[in-house]
Amino acid sequence: MTTTGEHGASTAGLPAEPITEVTPARRPSPGEAARTLVQHSTRATLSTLALDPAGYPFGSVAPYGILGDGRPVLCISTMAEHTRNLQNDPRASFFVVEEFPQGEAMDNGRLTLIGTAHELEQRDEARAAFLARNPEGASYVDFADFSFWALDVEAVRWVGGFGRMAWCSPEDYRDADPDPTPPVAAFSVRHMNEDHAEVLLDATRAFTGHPDAVSATGMRLDRYGIDVELVTPRGIGFARLPFDEPVADADGVRPAAVALARLARAALSGS
Amino acid sequence: MTTTGEHGASTAGLPAEPITEVTPARRPSPGEAARTLVQHSTRATLSTLALDPAGYPFGSVAPYGILGDGRPVLCISTMAEHTRNLQNDPRASFFVVEEFPQGEAMDNGRLTLIGTAHELEQRDEARAAFLARNPEGASYVDFADFSFWALDVEAVRWVGGFGRMAWCSPEDYRDADPDPTPPVAAFSVRHMNEDHAEVLLDATRAFTGHPDAVSATGMRLDRYGIDVELVTPRGIGFARLPFDEPVADADGVRPAAVALARLARAALSGS
Repeated sequence: MTTTGEHGASTAGLPAEPITEVTPARRPSPGEAARTLVQHSTRATLSTLALDPAGYPFGSVAPYGILGDGRPVLCISTMAEHTRNLQNDPRASFFVVEEFPQGEAMDNGRLTLIGTAHELEQRDEARAAFLARNPEGASYVDFADFSFWALDVEAVRWVGGFGRMAWCSPEDYRDADPDPTPPVAAFSVRHMNEDHAEVLLDATRAFTGHPDAVSATGMRLDRYGIDVELVTPRGIGFARLPFDEPVADADGVRPAAVALARLARAALSGS
Repeated sequence: MTTTGEHGASTAGLPAEPITEVTPARRPSPGEAARTLVQHSTRATLSTLALDPAGYPFGSVAPYGILGDGRPVLCISTMAEHTRNLQNDPRASFFVVEEFPQGEAMDNGRLTLIGTAHELEQRDEARAAFLARNPEGASYVDFADFSFWALDVEAVRWVGGFGRMAWCSPEDYRDADPDPTPPVAAFSVRHMNEDHAEVLLDATRAFTGHPDAVSATGMRLDRYGIDVELVTPRGIGFARLPFDEPVADADGVRPAAVALARLARAALSGS
């Protein structure tokens, strides 16, 4: 499902491959990555088909709520261009970028949900979902010219960063749970690099097939583990440190890291 | 050109109107507001027409440079969906939101440029314009799969915030100069409210037709002046304090405020 692109010749020589056998560490699925982006972003762009100039794609701002099945719900005014556009042609897309970037600008996640928008007759769930994320919306959601619209998702395009991208099925998106760690991930990785580098190195030696690693630097973190860049006498490599159990909430990152340290020391000492 | 919308009944009673005659203070034109948004934003969304599902609008991320005439220039890869979309149908829009918000979320400026994208044969100006805003692009702009595309602007939709919105002509957009003050505007307004409230009150009494104002609070600032909310015995009002000359760069806000204070005192003392 994931396609790796080749933008150009690598500048870094051949990466070091694992020299002992390892069980691949779990990664977020594209559906999980997509739900996670929608959950933790705050700014979205709605793209609609313009009435004038007719048929051109039209981007506009879209504060949103999230229904239980992951559909974004908008609260839009009949005075706004995008509402007139949707009333004429309901095809739309909803675009968000990673709110808590962990890498460089073009290496951050972004997501396009493509589908058909329709006005919701049943306002209660939509209203609650919208206000949960946009409390200031209380000042306008009940105005007569505003109504709630949901996007029925028909296609999901996720880009994780350079060379990490996938289409995922609407069902995978709908059924996935968002990852709770993005708000604390960048801080946690920085903190481990600065104050607990030995944990990253121990876990790299223990779990990634690089027992000869001499250093390891955390790059990204999610509920399933930590991506590291590592150095061995054989060259530079990339690997993933697995958490023992998926992190259940943002407060769970610290105990997961403590458990990782304990398990790594146990594995290295052969117990 | 500007349309004021009525979302609902006002909750604040009738505003206080000026009671002495004043020359209206200059405001940024919609073209200037549009150029300013493009100049100071860092994140843009490109909307294209999807190949699959065919004809749906498709939002994606678009780091950009700005050509001398205001056209956004993108550096995009043939591996990316939006590039394949543009090769099939060049109609596109380019959407940015205010980078330095001065008010609440839905009261911030946003802009949609609508037009036709085309690949640039002449790379030099495009490359320089792109790298000036995206220095990290040096790592990929010369890869064989990347090329520069400009958006020829055919329509410009600007929304300044609640009730402030306009279409402006492509010529007005092209010919306008961006305002240099957004990076310092929010700080400057806060600083004046906290430490120089007497300047805002003096200028309000002197220049806005509200000689009986008892307080004035800065709301937004641009190169031409400061929007204030004011209190009089007649009620609450909104007015604009004019700078003596347009602010030419971000460092010019402070001397403009000093001049405003001096002119206000002179006007109030009748000299």
